[in-house]
Amino acid sequence: HLALIDQKRLPHEEIWINCRTLEDVAQSIENMTVRGAPAIATAAAYGLVLDAQQTNALNWKQYRDLFFDNCKRMQATRPTAVNLFNALHSVRKLADTWTDATVIADVRKYILQFAKELENADLTTCKAIGAHGAKLAEGRKLRVLTHCNTGSLATAGYGTALGVIRALHEKGLIEHVYVDETRPYLQGSRLTAYELQQEGIPYSIQVDSAAAYIMKHEKVDLVVVGADRIAANGDTANKVGTYSLAIVAAHHKVPFYIAAPRSTFDPKIAGGDQIPIEMRSPKEVLEHAGVLVAPSKAEARNPSFDVTSNELISGLITEFGVLRPPFGPAIQKLFTEQ
Amino acid sequence: HLALIDQKRLPHEEIWINCRTLEDVAQSIENMTVRGAPAIATAAAYGLVLDAQQTNALNWKQYRDLFFDNCKRMQATRPTAVNLFNALHSVRKLADTWTDATVIADVRKYILQFAKELENADLTTCKAIGAHGAKLAEGRKLRVLTHCNTGSLATAGYGTALGVIRALHEKGLIEHVYVDETRPYLQGSRLTAYELQQEGIPYSIQVDSAAAYIMKHEKVDLVVVGADRIAANGDTANKVGTYSLAIVAAHHKVPFYIAAPRSTFDPKIAGGDQIPIEMRSPKEVLEHAGVLVAPSKAEARNPSFDVTSNELISGLITEFGVLRPPFGPAIQKLFTEQ
Repeated sequence: HLALIDQKRLPHEEIWINCRTLEDVAQSIENMTVRGAPAIATAAAYGLVLDAQQTNALNWKQYRDLFFDNCKRMQATRPTAVNLFNALHSVRKLADTWTDATVIADVRKYILQFAKELENADLTTCKAIGAHGAKLAEGRKLRVLTHCNTGSLATAGYGTALGVIRALHEKGLIEHVYVDETRPYLQGSRLTAYELQQEGIPYSIQVDSAAAYIMKHEKVDLVVVGADRIAANGDTANKVGTYSLAIVAAHHKVPFYIAAPRSTFDPKIAGGDQIPIEMRSPKEVLEHAGVLVAPSKAEARNPSFDVTSNELISGLITEFGVLRPPFGPAIQKLFTEQ
Repeated sequence: HLALIDQKRLPHEEIWINCRTLEDVAQSIENMTVRGAPAIATAAAYGLVLDAQQTNALNWKQYRDLFFDNCKRMQATRPTAVNLFNALHSVRKLADTWTDATVIADVRKYILQFAKELENADLTTCKAIGAHGAKLAEGRKLRVLTHCNTGSLATAGYGTALGVIRALHEKGLIEHVYVDETRPYLQGSRLTAYELQQEGIPYSIQVDSAAAYIMKHEKVDLVVVGADRIAANGDTANKVGTYSLAIVAAHHKVPFYIAAPRSTFDPKIAGGDQIPIEMRSPKEVLEHAGVLVAPSKAEARNPSFDVTSNELISGLITEFGVLRPPFGPAIQKLFTEQ
C-alpha cells in the first residue's frame, strides 16, 4: 500500500492514510490529503503501481485497457497542475515500448521503477532549484515572503520555493521568512510553518491580506512561491492569492520569483488564459474547522488557483537555472537545449 | 444598562451582552464584541452615560475627576479609529460648559442627550453618505466589491460603505456584491454577508486574496470600503487588507472609494505614517474557531489595520459629498466651509 500523511490534519495530528487501491490515491488527491503539484504526480505514479500489483492479468495485453483507464482516472483528479499530466504522459510513452507478451511481473517492475525514478528525480530537481535560487542572495541575508506550501509536503522532499528557502538557510542567508497563512486551506500556517519550525528557520505568519502591510513596514527582500502550471509566455498558475501578491510586490518593487521544475512548464499553452482553474467547494471558504462562519445560505466563489501574468514575475527558478524575461525565448530554450 | 449584540458570535447566535458598567463597555470594545469606528464612538458615549447614572456624586464638582478618568479609560480601548477620540473631545468640550454647582441630575441628562444625539447624527450622516455614494452609479447597475463590515453593526445603523451599497440597492442599482471574508476576524463572511442576506442583496463571499482573481474574471465596477482614520492628505487607515485591495484595484483600473463621515477625518495628522496601528494578539491569526491551526509555538504578525496611501484612492464619500483628489485642499474645505 501507499502511506500518505494526511495534510489536512497537520500540524497537530500526523495521521497516515493507507491507500490500498488506485481509487484511494485518486480520492486522496481530490480531497487534498496529498497536495502540491510535484507530490501529486508522484502519488499518482504510485497509484498506478498499486493497481498493477493487484491485477490478475497475466501480461500487458490483458492489462493494457485497464492501465490506460487508470491513467485517465488519475488525470481527472485535479485540473490545474501540469506535473501530473506530464508524469502520466511519460508513463504512457513508456508503456508504448511494452509488447502484448510482456509478462505482468515485468509491467509491475517497470511501473514501480518509473514511480521511484520520478520520486528521486523530483528530489534532485528540487535541490538544483534550491541551489540556483540561493545564488539570488548574492551573499546577503534575506527577508523572504512566501505563499502556500511548496516544501517536503508538496514535493517528493526538499521543496521548490521552500527548497530555495532551505538552501538559503543552509548557507546562513535567511534572516526571516514571512508566511502567508493561505486561505482557505491554510497551507501556510499549517504546513509551511510546520516545515520551517522543524528546520529551525525563523518565521512568522500573517493573514494573506497583511502581506502588503508587511512589505511596506518590514523590509522584504524577495517573494518566492511555487507553481502549478507555467505557460509558454511565463504566465503562471499557482495557489489563489499568488496573483494578488505579485501585484502587491510589484507595487513595492520587491522582486517576485517563481520556483518550479521543468515538469511544471506547459509550452503547449501560449498564455495563462488557457489554463483551467479548478473551482472548489464554497464550503472550504464558508466553514472554519467544520464550523460555518457565514449565514447558512451564503454563497462563495472559491477559485483554488489564479494566474500571475508574466510581466509581474522577476524570474523563474528552475533546476537548469533562473529564467529571465522575456520568458518566451527562455522557456523555448529550456525545452530545446536541455 | 447598555445591550450590545455580540458581534463575535454572529451570524449564528444573536447573543446580547448587557453592559452594566463603563468598564463592561470598555472591555466590549477591546474584545471586539462591538466594533466599527462609528459604533465604538456611540458605545463609548453610552458607557459614560452608564457611569453617570451610577455615581453617588451630587454635582459636577464632585463628579468631574471621575468623568475625565472615564474619558481616558474609553480613549485607551482602541488606538486607530478616530471617531471615538472625536466623540470624547466633543463631550469634554460640552462638560466645560458645566459649573461646579451643576446638579448631577443635569449632568446625567446632558451626557445622555449627547449620546442620543451622537447616535442620531450617525444615522443621518450614514444616509447622506449613502445618497452621495449612490450617485456614482450614474443609473447603471453595479458590481461592487467590499472589505470588512461597515453596515448597521459598525455604525449606529445603515452603515458607511455598506450604506452606499444599501442606497444603491434601494435604487435597484446593485447587480452583485463581492464580499472579502476579511481575515482574521471574518467581519465580511460573518457580518457583511449577514446584513446583505437580511436586505435581500445578491452577494457572494471570497477569501481576501481572491479579490484580484474576481476583479480580473468577473466585471467589478467599484470597490467601496470604510475607514477608521483619514489623515489631512487623504491617507486612510482601515481594516488590514484594505491597502492590498487598493493596490489590486489600481492595477485593474477599478475605482476605489472610501466611505466615511467627517468624524473619521483627523486633519491634525498630516499623513498616514502618523496613524498608530493596533497590533492585536497572534492568537486571532493562529486559531480558527478556537482550534490552533499552526504549530504550537508559531509566531504571527497581526496588524489590525493598514494605511492606504491617497494616490490609490479615487474618492472619499462623506455626508457632505464626494471629495476628489487632490484631497489636501478638499479635506481642508470640509473643515472650514461646512
